[in-house]
Amino acid sequence: MELDAIRFARRFDTISGSAIREIFKMIAKPGMISFAGGNPALSALPDKQVAEIAQEVLAKDGKAILQYGATEGYAPLLESLKAYAQQQIGCEIPAVLPVTGSTQAMDLLCKALIDPGDRILVEDPSFLGNLQCMRLYQAELVPVESDENGLMIDKLEEAIIKYRPKLLYTIPTFQNPTGKTLAADRRKPIAELAAKYGMVVAEDDPYRDLRYSGTPLPSIKSYDKEGWVVFLGSFSKIISPGLRVGYMAGDSRILRKCTIGKQSSDVHTANLNQAIVDQYLRKNLLPGHIKAICASYQQQLKAMLGDLAGFPTGTRYTRPEGGLFIWVELPEGIDSKALLDQAVERRVAYVPGTHFFAGGGHENTLRLNFSNSTVEQIHEGMAVLKDIFEKAIK
Amino acid sequence: MELDAIRFARRFDTISGSAIREIFKMIAKPGMISFAGGNPALSALPDKQVAEIAQEVLAKDGKAILQYGATEGYAPLLESLKAYAQQQIGCEIPAVLPVTGSTQAMDLLCKALIDPGDRILVEDPSFLGNLQCMRLYQAELVPVESDENGLMIDKLEEAIIKYRPKLLYTIPTFQNPTGKTLAADRRKPIAELAAKYGMVVAEDDPYRDLRYSGTPLPSIKSYDKEGWVVFLGSFSKIISPGLRVGYMAGDSRILRKCTIGKQSSDVHTANLNQAIVDQYLRKNLLPGHIKAICASYQQQLKAMLGDLAGFPTGTRYTRPEGGLFIWVELPEGIDSKALLDQAVERRVAYVPGTHFFAGGGHENTLRLNFSNSTVEQIHEGMAVLKDIFEKAIK
Repeated sequence: MELDAIRFARRFDTISGSAIREIFKMIAKPGMISFAGGNPALSALPDKQVAEIAQEVLAKDGKAILQYGATEGYAPLLESLKAYAQQQIGCEIPAVLPVTGSTQAMDLLCKALIDPGDRILVEDPSFLGNLQCMRLYQAELVPVESDENGLMIDKLEEAIIKYRPKLLYTIPTFQNPTGKTLAADRRKPIAELAAKYGMVVAEDDPYRDLRYSGTPLPSIKSYDKEGWVVFLGSFSKIISPGLRVGYMAGDSRILRKCTIGKQSSDVHTANLNQAIVDQYLRKNLLPGHIKAICASYQQQLKAMLGDLAGFPTGTRYTRPEGGLFIWVELPEGIDSKALLDQAVERRVAYVPGTHFFAGGGHENTLRLNFSNSTVEQIHEGMAVLKDIFEKAIK
Repeated sequence: MELDAIRFARRFDTISGSAIREIFKMIAKPGMISFAGGNPALSALPDKQVAEIAQEVLAKDGKAILQYGATEGYAPLLESLKAYAQQQIGCEIPAVLPVTGSTQAMDLLCKALIDPGDRILVEDPSFLGNLQCMRLYQAELVPVESDENGLMIDKLEEAIIKYRPKLLYTIPTFQNPTGKTLAADRRKPIAELAAKYGMVVAEDDPYRDLRYSGTPLPSIKSYDKEGWVVFLGSFSKIISPGLRVGYMAGDSRILRKCTIGKQSSDVHTANLNQAIVDQYLRKNLLPGHIKAICASYQQQLKAMLGDLAGFPTGTRYTRPEGGLFIWVELPEGIDSKALLDQAVERRVAYVPGTHFFAGGGHENTLRLNFSNSTVEQIHEGMAVLKDIFEKAIK
């Protein structure tokens, strides 16, 4: 029998692969200015520090690092991570679980909670990588309306009552893709709604430390009395995405299910990578490193916002206080997906906004990343986009 | 609402966590002689080589290693891995996919193929970590009978006709937990049955290189004309399990689905870990390293087999030509699970055999690992077990 007769699992029926990952492959060409992806700047990746630390930890604990580890995590990291996570989240945390990038946190949380047909409330638009994850668990994604201050609490409660969701997936700080931040006075109500209705909240907060103006806000988790909120943290944006280390923090009962799920996902996150993050935390390298990154990213954000001011009349865009992304709405009728090929041909890339909506549509939107381009590249690339979009109007 | 009201996904209804992982926690005490687990000897873990390589790759390609990578794999490894895999498998391979330990390979293959209720044929007993993986995909596990030469082809075809399985999961070489090897003349028939009936075969072959006597046998994959066989390879037993690098090799259509699944499992396997394995392969360190490991493991196997000869009358055990495990059947009526506490109290650990059977039972069996103990430890630990089992008979 030929292999074409193979029947793949039904979870793939509507999945064709991450649009971002496909764009990555399309733009892997020299000279490309990429506003796609969510990559840190190469200058923000501490290769020398990591090389030194790798050397140290392998010299000191090499045999244990190369041996099998516990699914629950590398013991030294468990200690340093708990202290770090509590500081990040702003409250006592019963348990942490190191994971293979916070993408795995989302996967494990869905594994623990989601049966086919279960409802998950999502922001609209939201991070497409995790939308794909939820779809692969055959969840029904229910978009909840946001305004400029993030999720609208009345709409959220309406949706909870109507759909009885298992999970709310939210990125409260410098949201991906919009750059929006959930207002301070909406954070406690979300934790309260979760407890009122028995809904788990996945608070995905990888951009929290990348703040260039304004005041840090309390996490949703810090208002959580009953344990319904699970905080997903990442070192991808502040140390290195290539190391694939993130974490989950929350109630032990939920994390225990995720740990069992992780046993058959990858047994444990690689010890070397956990040991590197552990030492990065213990040497207290993070504050200085984040300060340096933020100083640079702030300039890049400013440059891109400046260029957007010259875009065609009717263009609207967010003005984030941090993070990696600006969200752009072009005048109605301009299809950013259709124009991507032209842009790529002229060596500039972005992600069409339609991919971030659970229900598609919104062809006039796009997501721009500013962290992975220098100020010069930003000016050059934005001039190309301005030209393409202007011509599309005429 | 209290968190106890949480409803976890149905896939966890019958899952309580890996027995081996639980035993690991129980035996993490100083002075323990562990015949549980499948850990390499600490002396077999090349910490100095890995430290040197880590230094080199971070110096040479540090920025790319710390940046996001492609889900498809780190480009240099893709090249070296393909050459290596073809040599291992003994045929041309259309595609390879580096994964986060071969445990992830099994997870991705199930993700690609298995809907709840789908049948998977398994050896009985089989590797319990992957049994748990298949159960979490809510597959129905159908045991197929083996004799001393591995899976019985007539029984296999009967089961295929009766159950129309999506997948056969087999560990053909030095099987976990039995140490048995599938006979040469049964390998081609399995590839043929897969093509005849349209069934995917997961050929899980992590122990292939750990051969202490006899002749290497062709892989099942080498007889595969249509692409139904997927080969799962691992570097855990021959370089380091803590690095979490394995691979899948096979048809591009199947690997493409697994790649899409991997996008939302962990985006990509950590680049540093892939780069380390790449250099380990390119420097051609593996042949010498395997030779050294095998020389030592052979002595450990011999010591354990020698000790087993003095076990109570009626004890039967396998005499593997390689791998990490010996399978022991005690006289009927001895319950190895009930006796484990006694053994652990006397600082010796093993895995009760019942955990490896899809349907439980077989309480008189156990799995012994010899790679993670010195010859002295083996004699000491086996004397304790002999004493415990002898007393249990009286």
